[in-house]
Amino acid sequence: MNIETIALDADDTLWVNEPYFQATEKEFCALLKDIMPEDKISAELLKTEMKNLELYGYGIKGFMLSMIETLYKITDAKADIKLVRKVIDLGHDLIQQPVELIEGVEDTLEKLSKKYKLVLATKGDLLDQERKLKASKLGKWFVHIEVMSHKTPDNFRKLIRHLEILPKNFLMVGNSIQSDIIPVLEINSYAAHIPYSITWNHEKHEKELEHPNLFKLEKIEDLLNHLI
Amino acid sequence: MNIETIALDADDTLWVNEPYFQATEKEFCALLKDIMPEDKISAELLKTEMKNLELYGYGIKGFMLSMIETLYKITDAKADIKLVRKVIDLGHDLIQQPVELIEGVEDTLEKLSKKYKLVLATKGDLLDQERKLKASKLGKWFVHIEVMSHKTPDNFRKLIRHLEILPKNFLMVGNSIQSDIIPVLEINSYAAHIPYSITWNHEKHEKELEHPNLFKLEKIEDLLNHLI
Repeated sequence: MNIETIALDADDTLWVNEPYFQATEKEFCALLKDIMPEDKISAELLKTEMKNLELYGYGIKGFMLSMIETLYKITDAKADIKLVRKVIDLGHDLIQQPVELIEGVEDTLEKLSKKYKLVLATKGDLLDQERKLKASKLGKWFVHIEVMSHKTPDNFRKLIRHLEILPKNFLMVGNSIQSDIIPVLEINSYAAHIPYSITWNHEKHEKELEHPNLFKLEKIEDLLNHLI
Repeated sequence: MNIETIALDADDTLWVNEPYFQATEKEFCALLKDIMPEDKISAELLKTEMKNLELYGYGIKGFMLSMIETLYKITDAKADIKLVRKVIDLGHDLIQQPVELIEGVEDTLEKLSKKYKLVLATKGDLLDQERKLKASKLGKWFVHIEVMSHKTPDNFRKLIRHLEILPKNFLMVGNSIQSDIIPVLEINSYAAHIPYSITWNHEKHEKELEHPNLFKLEKIEDLLNHLI
């Protein structure tokens, strides 16, 4: 193993993200609780999000628009527009959530940065991610920030070319099997999976994955046992 | 002058953008013409967009959300939610607009690329810009694509560092004095301004600018007279 550069996912790897989205979704469902049970609203919202994913990509603005569209749909075009205003307010709150680091992140980055080049590799909305990075005060540990629209093998190939290393010199760390692990193993790099307690339904991956280039870890400090 | 790398803005420099936004805005105003004259609705919308700029950044999703918020506001929270649905449809159409290249772009890029490294430097929504770049088929001319949340002097400095050149080796080409010219002159690089017939109100810059590092051009082919 000759890893030179470690890329880390951000949302739910370095800082808390999905619980904030789920809390917002819960408040959204509560707005409509007289019309439909919460789990059905959630299922409709996920359907709308998936339909819009190609148009909107990942991020809070797309989530807001999908909530508004779901509101329209499940009320049969009869919702009071005041509910739309409430959804916009929920979105604004979500955008302005404080950034809460996951335990062990700062210490781990500091130690890893002494031996490796660290890169932040995240998908989603550029402005959201820049805002969170700034609030996290973690920027100083990274030699490069890559915000991708999608975590595809091709986008990881481009990142590795850009870093002027080979796939075998690259390790990706993240919580999503779908986004952080599978595309990286596909290009013959290394991947470390650190599950987060809460995963977005769309990103859930049921099958247990086995691969010689895959580390399965429990928490971010476990990286140190393997790499330092 | 020792320019090595030329960065080009995308929207309204390489392809048509603002006219599509303005056509959408016109349709939005038409939805509400019984409530308020068109120019007043436009003024309200711009106010909402400016208020939300820090939260949303640039791009179509933010524009959609600002239209919805304006709809709510100018109808005094009384709009039929069917109008919200219409705004969402307008936004989806805008996202899926075909990409129309500005005259002379392909030929100019081909000729410049023989002597210079070309970079695409655009602000806005990552996914929107990737989609347009793909549809434009211009990707092959660029050694690097930079989508910035904001075109600040600091973000241009980062880009130049990343390209491993000096400010004096860098020329930025674009239609917006505010975004493409002023921050670039500030860091002692070169800038070429090619005005576009239609400019977003927010980006209008009334004062005539004079600077030894500034080229004032009429069309993109004029770059060839100065640089080839």
